[in-house]
Amino acid sequence: MTKVFLKKKIQNRVLQGHPWVFGNEVGTIDGPVTAGDTVDVFTHQGFFIGRGYINPQSQILVRLLTRDKDEQIDAEFFYRRLLKAWKYRQQLGYVENCRLVFGEADEMPALVIDKFNDHFVLQTLALGMDRWKGAIVDALNRIFSPKGIYERNDVPVRELEGLPQQKGFLSAPFDTNVIINENGLKFHVDIENGQKTGYFLDQQDNRRAIQHIVKGADVLEAFCYTGTFSCHAGHYGAKSVLGLDISEHAVNTARRNATLNNLDDVCKFQAVNAFDVLKQWTREEKKFDVVILDPPAFTKSRENIQKAITGYKEINLRGMKLLKPGGFLVTASCTNLVPPSLFLEIIDMAAKDAKKKLRQVTFQTQAQDHPILWNIENTTYLKFLIVEVQ
Amino acid sequence: MTKVFLKKKIQNRVLQGHPWVFGNEVGTIDGPVTAGDTVDVFTHQGFFIGRGYINPQSQILVRLLTRDKDEQIDAEFFYRRLLKAWKYRQQLGYVENCRLVFGEADEMPALVIDKFNDHFVLQTLALGMDRWKGAIVDALNRIFSPKGIYERNDVPVRELEGLPQQKGFLSAPFDTNVIINENGLKFHVDIENGQKTGYFLDQQDNRRAIQHIVKGADVLEAFCYTGTFSCHAGHYGAKSVLGLDISEHAVNTARRNATLNNLDDVCKFQAVNAFDVLKQWTREEKKFDVVILDPPAFTKSRENIQKAITGYKEINLRGMKLLKPGGFLVTASCTNLVPPSLFLEIIDMAAKDAKKKLRQVTFQTQAQDHPILWNIENTTYLKFLIVEVQ
Repeated sequence: MTKVFLKKKIQNRVLQGHPWVFGNEVGTIDGPVTAGDTVDVFTHQGFFIGRGYINPQSQILVRLLTRDKDEQIDAEFFYRRLLKAWKYRQQLGYVENCRLVFGEADEMPALVIDKFNDHFVLQTLALGMDRWKGAIVDALNRIFSPKGIYERNDVPVRELEGLPQQKGFLSAPFDTNVIINENGLKFHVDIENGQKTGYFLDQQDNRRAIQHIVKGADVLEAFCYTGTFSCHAGHYGAKSVLGLDISEHAVNTARRNATLNNLDDVCKFQAVNAFDVLKQWTREEKKFDVVILDPPAFTKSRENIQKAITGYKEINLRGMKLLKPGGFLVTASCTNLVPPSLFLEIIDMAAKDAKKKLRQVTFQTQAQDHPILWNIENTTYLKFLIVEVQ
Repeated sequence: MTKVFLKKKIQNRVLQGHPWVFGNEVGTIDGPVTAGDTVDVFTHQGFFIGRGYINPQSQILVRLLTRDKDEQIDAEFFYRRLLKAWKYRQQLGYVENCRLVFGEADEMPALVIDKFNDHFVLQTLALGMDRWKGAIVDALNRIFSPKGIYERNDVPVRELEGLPQQKGFLSAPFDTNVIINENGLKFHVDIENGQKTGYFLDQQDNRRAIQHIVKGADVLEAFCYTGTFSCHAGHYGAKSVLGLDISEHAVNTARRNATLNNLDDVCKFQAVNAFDVLKQWTREEKKFDVVILDPPAFTKSRENIQKAITGYKEINLRGMKLLKPGGFLVTASCTNLVPPSLFLEIIDMAAKDAKKKLRQVTFQTQAQDHPILWNIENTTYLKFLIVEVQ
């Protein structure tokens, strides 16, 4: 097996548990470098660090899969890892729907698997992981005997690895429009054409967190996508809910979700540009009891971070202004590059500009089926905050 | 009314919303200074900042109650503030038991009121607030028609204010041993002699957070006090629960709590020094599926902060070592002077020393009836963490 030796000075991060080895951290390589192959990684002194897959086309030259030198990377390896990931979700009570595999946090870098009851959606985001797709599908079949498995590899990040964007069945074809249960509600999931894997499971606990504050309230949700927070608000007793999203398709699904839960009378949706509407309604001094902001990621690159900060500040400032005194702002950010402390700073700045006083009700992350590793920054990506605004 | 003028350079904190004015921040005082009296606070230029109570004997010379110059501090003021605090708890769903007033976070500095269903326990921790005790009791009677009100002012911090330590009835006498409902369980609350106000309501949501991980598990709880986490573990399906506390009295109450919930067979308690036992059992390589650590505050003074850090590190290191691979550590800290980021650092250090890998399941604060103000540090005091330990 090819041996990769790290440079002398820059191996602490990897030694301390991070599974990524960047090309510029590597000193010498002993053996052929074939994209996707399993390689062993050593310190410059020759101490074994771990075993993973290599891709010379990627900035991340090696992603480690194990630190046990007796563990082979084969089909059984993926079966064991998937079983372990499933046991963990079961232990935490995420049985029906869950992120079954959360990449690095499950020691399976670049692999994402979402479980929607009997259906599974898979993403292999690096070449070395993509190679094992067959073994992963076999393992899913062995553990779950699923009704269907679908690949949502239609994501640009694959191109950095020299992989094509593609989607399709990894099982016998099935109806990719499924309905899932969440917190006592039902939601349409469009496995084939929904965003990412078809549904945002990461907010499933956070949706429950609005339970008490929406009771009897007039609720506005901007960036409502398929209306899952809105439907929760209706379900938990909101007087009225208005969801806004720029996508006509999303708003149609939101309406279908409201119908599915007998919430048509309470939950209304409009296909509009939420940025514009927030601005206009702030000017018109419209007021709500609860404003929910769950926008898509504002940036994926460090160059645009300042733009993202400005964007978050703007929508949150307007959200605060649209609240009656003592109303609640429910605000989230899934932008990886905005760490929790920065997100709180942005909200604090917005409050100062809006001349509002805040009281924190709760500050949460993504659901527990997306576990966090402290030494891998991008595993803490979702920020979810509720504040009372005076 | 006496006028207090701040010095020129050090008023930003107060101007930005903090209610404490320290003696060394004050330039001139215009009028008599009578401990407990209401005074107005101004910038050095004479702009009104707020109105509060003064105590020349305290390091905190003035604590602000309002920033509205038209708002008078009288009995009606406290009635309005209590009503507002109650409305907030109702909005968040904390109806039966709650911290009704959380001092500064409810714009009533140095006042704590816990609601145990129909019984109320009150602490007035500053002289200026103590003066209004009668008005506060009247307001409680007017809003709740309670079965009983009790004063737990037997706390040393009162002496810094020149106040005596005392406890007793503020209503007709009643049986101070009450039983409360929490998360489907029942607990004895000893209003007269329990710690602080008799019961730690701040962990009520966190106790629910162990629901899934304790199922079928062998659970150890160190510093179990009256066994509330232990009983929750039993209730949620633990195979066995062992609670340790140095206080014979606490352990007896823990046993009574187990009996009250028909959990005698599952939940056992021992009156021992948890520090010693953790050490000894680590040496003996005892193993559990879940270890819960909820110790009392390790320090109240900055001088002993290093000791507190060492203490937290030690118990958490031992807690990790007492876990089977893949077990869960549930660990809390209520030490005010250990901020959340420092607490996580300590746990991280303990893991490195114990050669364990952690995955964060959840990181929470105190329950939402103890709201957090970002500009008042000591409102974020409780840290509650669950990690998987490999």
